[in-house]
Amino acid sequence: MLSAKPEFTLQALAEKLGAQLRGNAAHCINGLGTLSNAQSQQIAFLANPRYKPQLATTNAGAVLLTPADAENFSGNALVLANPYLAFAQLTALFDQTPQPALGIHASASVSATAMVPASARIGAGVVIGEEVVLGERCVIDAGAVLHDRVSVGDDCRIHSNVVVHHDCVLGNRVNICAGAIIGADGFGFANDRGRWQKIYQLGRVVIGSDVDIGANTTIDRGALEDTEIHDQVIIDNQVQIAHNVVVGQGTAIAACCGISGSSRIGRYCILAGGVGLVGHIEICDHVQITGMTMVTKSITEPGSYSSGTAFDHTDKWKKMAVRLRRLDDLATRVRNLEQGKPSL
Amino acid sequence: MLSAKPEFTLQALAEKLGAQLRGNAAHCINGLGTLSNAQSQQIAFLANPRYKPQLATTNAGAVLLTPADAENFSGNALVLANPYLAFAQLTALFDQTPQPALGIHASASVSATAMVPASARIGAGVVIGEEVVLGERCVIDAGAVLHDRVSVGDDCRIHSNVVVHHDCVLGNRVNICAGAIIGADGFGFANDRGRWQKIYQLGRVVIGSDVDIGANTTIDRGALEDTEIHDQVIIDNQVQIAHNVVVGQGTAIAACCGISGSSRIGRYCILAGGVGLVGHIEICDHVQITGMTMVTKSITEPGSYSSGTAFDHTDKWKKMAVRLRRLDDLATRVRNLEQGKPSL
Amino acid sequence: MLSAKPEFTLQALAEKLGAQLRGNAAHCINGLGTLSNAQSQQIAFLANPRYKPQLATTNAGAVLLTPADAENFSGNALVLANPYLAFAQLTALFDQTPQPALGIHASASVSATAMVPASARIGAGVVIGEEVVLGERCVIDAGAVLHDRVSVGDDCRIHSNVVVHHDCVLGNRVNICAGAIIGADGFGFANDRGRWQKIYQLGRVVIGSDVDIGANTTIDRGALEDTEIHDQVIIDNQVQIAHNVVVGQGTAIAACCGISGSSRIGRYCILAGGVGLVGHIEICDHVQITGMTMVTKSITEPGSYSSGTAFDHTDKWKKMAVRLRRLDDLATRVRNLEQGKPSL
Repeated sequence: MLSAKPEFTLQALAEKLGAQLRGNAAHCINGLGTLSNAQSQQIAFLANPRYKPQLATTNAGAVLLTPADAENFSGNALVLANPYLAFAQLTALFDQTPQPALGIHASASVSATAMVPASARIGAGVVIGEEVVLGERCVIDAGAVLHDRVSVGDDCRIHSNVVVHHDCVLGNRVNICAGAIIGADGFGFANDRGRWQKIYQLGRVVIGSDVDIGANTTIDRGALEDTEIHDQVIIDNQVQIAHNVVVGQGTAIAACCGISGSSRIGRYCILAGGVGLVGHIEICDHVQITGMTMVTKSITEPGSYSSGTAFDHTDKWKKMAVRLRRLDDLATRVRNLEQGKPSL
Repeated sequence: MLSAKPEFTLQALAEKLGAQLRGNAAHCINGLGTLSNAQSQQIAFLANPRYKPQLATTNAGAVLLTPADAENFSGNALVLANPYLAFAQLTALFDQTPQPALGIHASASVSATAMVPASARIGAGVVIGEEVVLGERCVIDAGAVLHDRVSVGDDCRIHSNVVVHHDCVLGNRVNICAGAIIGADGFGFANDRGRWQKIYQLGRVVIGSDVDIGANTTIDRGALEDTEIHDQVIIDNQVQIAHNVVVGQGTAIAACCGISGSSRIGRYCILAGGVGLVGHIEICDHVQITGMTMVTKSITEPGSYSSGTAFDHTDKWKKMAVRLRRLDDLATRVRNLEQGKPSL
Repeated sequence: MLSAKPEFTLQALAEKLGAQLRGNAAHCINGLGTLSNAQSQQIAFLANPRYKPQLATTNAGAVLLTPADAENFSGNALVLANPYLAFAQLTALFDQTPQPALGIHASASVSATAMVPASARIGAGVVIGEEVVLGERCVIDAGAVLHDRVSVGDDCRIHSNVVVHHDCVLGNRVNICAGAIIGADGFGFANDRGRWQKIYQLGRVVIGSDVDIGANTTIDRGALEDTEIHDQVIIDNQVQIAHNVVVGQGTAIAACCGISGSSRIGRYCILAGGVGLVGHIEICDHVQITGMTMVTKSITEPGSYSSGTAFDHTDKWKKMAVRLRRLDDLATRVRNLEQGKPSL
């Protein structure tokens, strides 16, 4: 049931955030908004300098501001070093995502050999296999399936219709969005004179702590050794991570990326949407890859990488594409010109 | 259970379609087919002029034709302005997609506070949360999960294993194919000195009427405001729509597209398969984008847009790719030639 | 429950594989490993010549080797023609993927008109519709849904939360990974003056024998005729196969590929990850397509095909992209130089 809308005084919010309060400490806030749309009971934030002019006209009941931005602002303000981070922290206060009731829903199927603490919330139709171990305060939403011997740390949330296959391991505070499939078999086959012979996938998926995995994302189990997702990795929707991939700490992977088998991604990398990596390559730490780039070999230096062509009107693009097919010919003709050879 | 195969006289079909009937009004039709494959109890259609020669040899029991195409055709015909549309309308007559029995399946978990009309069909294992409101004649297939406070209009179909998260809103006649995830959390994080701080997603997904959403597609809820899918939008399988995207009326999005956060797509646009949009851009009405195009900035004029390179034999493509890396050098050499500078 | 770890003597493994045994026939093997990581109770393999130096230092209890590679190896060896194939065969011995208990789980919903042999294993929460027919020894994992009149051959495995829609047909030994959706409606609409009119999809998906389908993959049912996946096809995760596609025998499709409607892929083709095919084209037998290639027309000759641009540092790539937009201009300038026209 929808609980009453949460409400906080600016005083209370300032204390939670460790912010300096300017203005009316008793002013009540019941939500968040953008500078342009926030109402008098909402708090807004200024993180991107291009929105600074909106400070003059905002109706927000208060604004999260840096000391510099707060200087000329006469309204209510919470002043701190990182307003965007403070905004993120405040969203937790106003979140109303429901969760299953404490305990195990009558329609769930939980193996007698599973360890489910009293602090767990197990939703309708959930299936928990043999020898599964759940940490404290886990929330397993309706329709999720945890196969035999899965191990889950404390404070994890596994959303509806997620499947976690046998023997996979999750750390603490792991959030897996709906429909994600963890630990399905990797795509491994040997070719026997034209026939594909399945290679059973004997490894696991091992996920660290503070990891976030998006809706309908798939992370395959390893062939012999494990697929590894390290601490503080965040992965968006519909990402495909193949068997034996390793994703390093703090890396972010946006939607629709595909990471081929046995590739290793370093720490604190950012892959934009739709990026593809071939298999068996290594990306070093602190690499950014722009959207829809195809990465065909290892990257050994930090920095930003891209591929693809800019988009254009289709008719111009078609001309370009034709010219591109003849680029080798064009280069030869330039060489001939340089050498004073007659044109053909 | 499979009901008996439906059967209609040409007279009946002509009346349903408002078509002019030529030939045997009593002829019985029990299915649809292509001109080349239809049998004598099936009706075919001619929409693409390149198939016109097949009129001479078709075994179809009748053909949907324009007045012009019907002129020299001697078989049974239903004559009308738009044969392809008529074909689409006829498919509804022959569809035998099963649906759950009227009422609530014994294995479903429906909250006592949900409003489920007597006209609803709720399948096995369905989960319906608190304060969910269903319109008339909704069909919720086996394994679907509707979280708390979801609002669904009349005549919606939500297929198996779909998840609709809390507070999302669906209009009338919305069809959501199996495995789609509506309203999972958007991919929002603030960076706190290398650690990702989750931004709780406080908005909803609001879907208009007559919307069709494909299998395993994901549409994330908004961060502060809502993600919006307007009336008559059709979306194919495995599309990813990020938080706070707005898709305008009548737009079609083919499979595997990825739309990044806060982008706005206008009305009556067509995105072919695999198109990617970066975030925070705007596409005006009546834009077509060809397959696998990466759209990196706003589009302000209607028309067709493309990116990418034509495919080729891998060895030729490799040469082209090498030349492309040296394109800047080639342009400099051409400039030198034009200026009479010696080649290096 | 985890059964005791399986263990085999080298003698037993040699007999299973038809291999020549060199060394200690009584040595016990309880698992598989790579040459570099295998322990004394594990068996390794040498398939890729670049790992041959590891033979000198491996701790593996035995190695699968070709006669040539076995010549200078003094450890325990199983000698045979195709070590990688033998490795694949051995993985089956050590696989410990759990399966539901024999029979029908109490929480499953199985129609009285479905034919479920006593050899079937039906997991928790499974839903099986009317007139479904299962062959012998099928395993249907928790949360899977088989709609009315689905026909499944012998020895199939349908993993958790898979949906197979009505009337679809699976051959023998078909493996469908978790979350895959088989037979959802194809993306077919007629345009009625700006409004989309749904074309009901009257065909099925017909899948041959020995087919493997990855997690969260979607294969749509045909519009009038069937979508067909022939024998021995292997398909990875998150692949989208549209209505009326035909995939020929023995073809492999890696993750994130998208195949548009009515395209036909020949036999023994290999599509790498992220490949896209437009609709209504035909790919002949024995074609390889490299990663993220966009295939825009039919391919009539066997061979390897590619598209895209190599990735580079973003700043270099940006320069290239600008030059590429001006490629038509560059070609004109070269033509002018060749013709002795003055530069502009």
